[in-house]
Amino acid sequence: MTELRRVAAALIHYPVVDRRGETVTAAITNIDVHDLSRSAYTYGLCALYLVHPIAAQRELAARIRAHWVHGSGAKRIPDRKPPLEQLMVVCDLEAALQHLSGDDGDVELWTTSARPASNALTHDEARERLATPGPPVLLAFGTSWGLASSVHERASCHLAPIESPRSDSYNHLSVRAAAAILFDRLVGVRGGTE
Amino acid sequence: MTELRRVAAALIHYPVVDRRGETVTAAITNIDVHDLSRSAYTYGLCALYLVHPIAAQRELAARIRAHWVHGSGAKRIPDRKPPLEQLMVVCDLEAALQHLSGDDGDVELWTTSARPASNALTHDEARERLATPGPPVLLAFGTSWGLASSVHERASCHLAPIESPRSDSYNHLSVRAAAAILFDRLVGVRGGTE
Repeated sequence: MTELRRVAAALIHYPVVDRRGETVTAAITNIDVHDLSRSAYTYGLCALYLVHPIAAQRELAARIRAHWVHGSGAKRIPDRKPPLEQLMVVCDLEAALQHLSGDDGDVELWTTSARPASNALTHDEARERLATPGPPVLLAFGTSWGLASSVHERASCHLAPIESPRSDSYNHLSVRAAAAILFDRLVGVRGGTE
Repeated sequence: MTELRRVAAALIHYPVVDRRGETVTAAITNIDVHDLSRSAYTYGLCALYLVHPIAAQRELAARIRAHWVHGSGAKRIPDRKPPLEQLMVVCDLEAALQHLSGDDGDVELWTTSARPASNALTHDEARERLATPGPPVLLAFGTSWGLASSVHERASCHLAPIESPRSDSYNHLSVRAAAAILFDRLVGVRGGTE
């Protein structure tokens, strides 16, 4: 499959909810920056936006990025450079959407969640839509206990959760694992790879 | 799909190779323990074996496990308890295979790699085999730059790598992302989830 639409991902640190459902700002996790950048790049996404409202946290992410793009990290593990180069550190979701849409202004926000929702788009449907011409798509992932409802409310669509094969439906994947699985389902190479 | 065979995963820290292809022992990464446990449990695997030859490193892993199973972590985030309970810390691959096979003694080792190999089993073929009665299967993942050839040599089969959709075939997923994607391909719920 060749996706016809540009696809990017955003890792949102605000507004997200904590385990009691309160809206909070989550701290940046170094390994999220690495794993999501590497997964997004491997799956051909055009950018990974790291969204954080606090300047000091954005500076931390920018320092991580600089270490792997220009610093000693780039010499030690050159394979890390291309994925980290694609990382864009921004202050809010609006900035990510604006950057992705470019001059054209047309863009769709697709949100993700570990919880079932009505009107959720199945992953097969989402895959088909990405193979049909249309505006670029920003896949939004929430840190902590997931995206606040205000983010879902502004989305063009909401992706179905990754369903657990367990009979008790236990589903507590890390955002690093969930994003990798969704990239694979939406734009991965299908059929028997050899 | 219901898999008919018991499936477990092993995260191997020795023997693995470094970026020059030398056989090395890798250090345990805390987030590997969490992410692989959570992904393995969510996908219904019966165990995650953490394989390390150094006693002090096994003690570290055992302390992480105890914190989330019996300590304050279990109270703070109870959802972490079931996946960490399934974590088994062992000194070598043999111990993992013996534990998984039980009294019966029958078990298959399936190895993974980011590199293409001849005779590799496609993920669709692997999925079919798991849906057919047979001995339990241990999926082995290597830390650092991947499993040493001695591990592949003793395997019943070698799984194909996760193919990158990029034209330059760039493929540098973290072991956390690669394991999650493989669990999803091998035993995940197929078809449009909603």
